[in-house]
Amino acid sequence: MALNISQALELIELSHQKNVSTRPPRPLYEPRDYIMSQSGKRMRSLFCLMGYELYKDDIESACDLAYVIELFHNFTLVHDDIMDAATLRRGVPTVQHTYGTNAAILTGDAMLIEVYDRLLKIDSPLKANMLTTMTQTAREVCEGQSLDMTFEETDKVSIADYLKMIELKTAVLLGASLKLGAILADAPEKDQNHLYKFAVNAGVSFQLQDDFLDVYGDPSTFGKKVGGDIIQGKKTYLYLRAIELLDGDDRAHFEKLYNSKELTERDKVKRVTNIFDELYLPHYCTEAKEAFFSLAKSHLDFVSIDQEQKDHLLKFARSLMDRAS
Amino acid sequence: MALNISQALELIELSHQKNVSTRPPRPLYEPRDYIMSQSGKRMRSLFCLMGYELYKDDIESACDLAYVIELFHNFTLVHDDIMDAATLRRGVPTVQHTYGTNAAILTGDAMLIEVYDRLLKIDSPLKANMLTTMTQTAREVCEGQSLDMTFEETDKVSIADYLKMIELKTAVLLGASLKLGAILADAPEKDQNHLYKFAVNAGVSFQLQDDFLDVYGDPSTFGKKVGGDIIQGKKTYLYLRAIELLDGDDRAHFEKLYNSKELTERDKVKRVTNIFDELYLPHYCTEAKEAFFSLAKSHLDFVSIDQEQKDHLLKFARSLMDRAS
Repeated sequence: MALNISQALELIELSHQKNVSTRPPRPLYEPRDYIMSQSGKRMRSLFCLMGYELYKDDIESACDLAYVIELFHNFTLVHDDIMDAATLRRGVPTVQHTYGTNAAILTGDAMLIEVYDRLLKIDSPLKANMLTTMTQTAREVCEGQSLDMTFEETDKVSIADYLKMIELKTAVLLGASLKLGAILADAPEKDQNHLYKFAVNAGVSFQLQDDFLDVYGDPSTFGKKVGGDIIQGKKTYLYLRAIELLDGDDRAHFEKLYNSKELTERDKVKRVTNIFDELYLPHYCTEAKEAFFSLAKSHLDFVSIDQEQKDHLLKFARSLMDRAS
Repeated sequence: MALNISQALELIELSHQKNVSTRPPRPLYEPRDYIMSQSGKRMRSLFCLMGYELYKDDIESACDLAYVIELFHNFTLVHDDIMDAATLRRGVPTVQHTYGTNAAILTGDAMLIEVYDRLLKIDSPLKANMLTTMTQTAREVCEGQSLDMTFEETDKVSIADYLKMIELKTAVLLGASLKLGAILADAPEKDQNHLYKFAVNAGVSFQLQDDFLDVYGDPSTFGKKVGGDIIQGKKTYLYLRAIELLDGDDRAHFEKLYNSKELTERDKVKRVTNIFDELYLPHYCTEAKEAFFSLAKSHLDFVSIDQEQKDHLLKFARSLMDRAS
């Protein structure tokens, strides 16, 4: 049976409503409810339900697990927003901006502990496997965030470094989401591992698409400000690829331009985009994105589900990629 | 057999040396090694080994578990020091002061995740019980820290509120340390629970002793500056008890004095201590401390170990209380 996305999203929202915390002390748990009640894309919940539904029909049984993953993801957002001194997330003030840094640190900690509290309460003989998968993933997400922080202060970041960073920071959690759903549904171990790799590589592909859209997205449908990464001088795939292709004076000129704070935003975006165009970066970025998506797809050859389900999973992943636009 | 403390401390230090992290990325794990290699009192490790040794002799087998507890405790210190903007801990710069706030947040997160990583690797049929105990305790420690933060901004804090806060913030982890050791040694469930309550109540007693010593400690043996809590205007047991006993103008006068920033430190400490003395607070505080210690002791009546072991455990707890001086 193919997962009905809008029905799945409805179940996810229901489970979010059901899991509002009433536990004291309120200063600890209110910020948790604040962020958990914002409607994000619920991409990780959807991956989890999808992983479950490939093997079993009663997707309601996977909602608690999907919620745990969403809780983990939101814990990382709360702490990342402190580190980035971000004031807005999903169009509303961040937890740290609303409740203060100290409350955001502590609430994040409590959310991470709650992840384990809830995982431990899931009634499944496969719980040990789920706990190990979650823990391994959580460590990697921290490692990815650490690499990201280091990169911002480093001149020499290779394309390979960048790909490793986005794999750890964002893709492994998508992999774990799909895998955890499959574990709960008692999927064969080989399937679990290939589904994991499918989603990790798809996740890298999504991130490359994000980098691309930030420059080349349609302003009328792209959720954020087009050119935002360029304005901030962020080390994206496009930037790093440009640095790799340019040398000598050309590179120095480009670096100066990319980090310039003197140009108007519009002028800076236009000039940088021109260089990206001259270097055929839209082409290279799309190529890299498709290469990762193709690698993702190849893992499905080793998964014991039927072709119809594979097609559905691929279509679903594609639709998430498109939704990011 | 009675636990030999200096031998236990040696084992603990060995396990700390063995568990230095070599994992990349270094910016994530170096701050972890920095704090874990500082020699603290290792009180929680000792409680864990003690809980194990009441039932089994090979205390080496409990060292990994003791290390996990120490790791959790140090995670809380890393994040608490950010919240308190503390620059020194154990006489050396804090993690956040040394590596920056962002690194301290992320390293703390990774340490908490490593707690679970290590717990999951402990080879014991009783792992589920350990995971649940650790998780329940971790939540409570966050709740205690949240209450503590709220109290600093609240006028009305009762003695009962304060006792609850210190129970959650510091005592439950001592309870869990003793209990986790006992669980690993396959102690009867009834024993586990009473050992937990023994250590929780002893932990409250330790904290009251800390509050007492901060004012009445011997400057030549007390590790910190005598009068430090008074200088900072901290809401301690003595302060809250004074507020409870005083009323009208007397209370207003005392509150003003306690929060004064105009007096010299020496003068402020002297005047506040005089009021504490007039209110017989050294007596009341000692009485409260002994009441909790006596409550702790009463739980040992329900534990199935022999009297000699109980005496040893009590002596050990007393010695830790004295060591705090």
